[in-house]
Amino acid sequence: MRIAVLGTGIVGRTIGTRLVGLGHEVMMGSRTADNVDAGAWVASAGAGASAGTFADAAAFGDLVFNCTAGAASLEALGRARSENLARKTLVDVANHLDFSQGVPPNVVVSPTDSLGEQIQHVFPDAHVVKTLNTINCNVMVDPARVPGEHDVFVCGNDPAAKAEVVDLLESFGWPAERILDLGDISAARGVEAYVQLWLRFLGATGTNDLNIRIVS
Amino acid sequence: MRIAVLGTGIVGRTIGTRLVGLGHEVMMGSRTADNVDAGAWVASAGAGASAGTFADAAAFGDLVFNCTAGAASLEALGRARSENLARKTLVDVANHLDFSQGVPPNVVVSPTDSLGEQIQHVFPDAHVVKTLNTINCNVMVDPARVPGEHDVFVCGNDPAAKAEVVDLLESFGWPAERILDLGDISAARGVEAYVQLWLRFLGATGTNDLNIRIVS
Repeated sequence: MRIAVLGTGIVGRTIGTRLVGLGHEVMMGSRTADNVDAGAWVASAGAGASAGTFADAAAFGDLVFNCTAGAASLEALGRARSENLARKTLVDVANHLDFSQGVPPNVVVSPTDSLGEQIQHVFPDAHVVKTLNTINCNVMVDPARVPGEHDVFVCGNDPAAKAEVVDLLESFGWPAERILDLGDISAARGVEAYVQLWLRFLGATGTNDLNIRIVS
Repeated sequence: MRIAVLGTGIVGRTIGTRLVGLGHEVMMGSRTADNVDAGAWVASAGAGASAGTFADAAAFGDLVFNCTAGAASLEALGRARSENLARKTLVDVANHLDFSQGVPPNVVVSPTDSLGEQIQHVFPDAHVVKTLNTINCNVMVDPARVPGEHDVFVCGNDPAAKAEVVDLLESFGWPAERILDLGDISAARGVEAYVQLWLRFLGATGTNDLNIRIVS
């Protein structure tokens, strides 16, 4: 299918490359059509990869990945234009991190809100599905990097969009039984807040190839 | 040893009963010396159990458990009096939950603060160790309720206090290799924020006998 990947950072490049490898046509979107990182990615990713503005990419994609930095996501999606996002599955993998006090960053969390919910609120015609933000991007697209069973989460208001994302996750290598539906988009509060703990796990264990498994 | 359990709710009663069963002398502390729930707990817990005010209990204990509701913890610990907490391990298992918008509650989280840190800040002479807040109280004191391997976390500024808490956790049944030290008390942000996700897990799975395991 045609997929837009918004964002040229390591997350966008990793997901974009994986999608191209799975046979999808992928346009990477960024602020300008001549973004150097996007151009380098197109050259390396091979046939099926292209680049354009956020709006170009969103118009191109039947499905859109938000891989921009969380602090910039709403502005980037605004540049993508709401009419290019309407009636499409918008896969939000972003985390709102605040590096102003150094590393590890603070995670911008709230008792009653989340980036996923904000995106859904600002773009009500998009079908936002929050997923994959709880793991390193290499693990997102290749869960076997972490041995054994571990879990990935989806949430969103539109069941058909969630089903489409589950299919994509399975194509990345996630077993169906390790993909947990947490409900509507308000569950983004949970998966985004968890990143505060995940960063501590990375610090305590020294590896990015790490995830959690629910045990019950 | 002599242990204070502050709070008469299900968490305090469950931990208190477990501690008495392990042979400790336990005083349950509450706002008033004649608290009905504390009296019923003393009657059921058997020899070694007693009750008093927050200050009575904190003065009695060589180690203090904060099992009060997170929204009331600072006030309860104030009633326990800082001089009764000084130079003691203060095990904080509380979560700051906001039920004003119904169930599941909102978890009061912040990018830069946590209840554990607030307690350490207000009671600088206490050795605050945050632990056990990531699981249901029945699992806290009996990890075998959840089959297989799963993890519990400790954080705090005082290594000796953390070691004391690790010993207690092992006496509850936690294997040493499943007790992960996340660092100083600022890691309380992570374990408290995770509760937002844990509540979603409970909703999605329908069981309280649930925990996570780090896989790497």
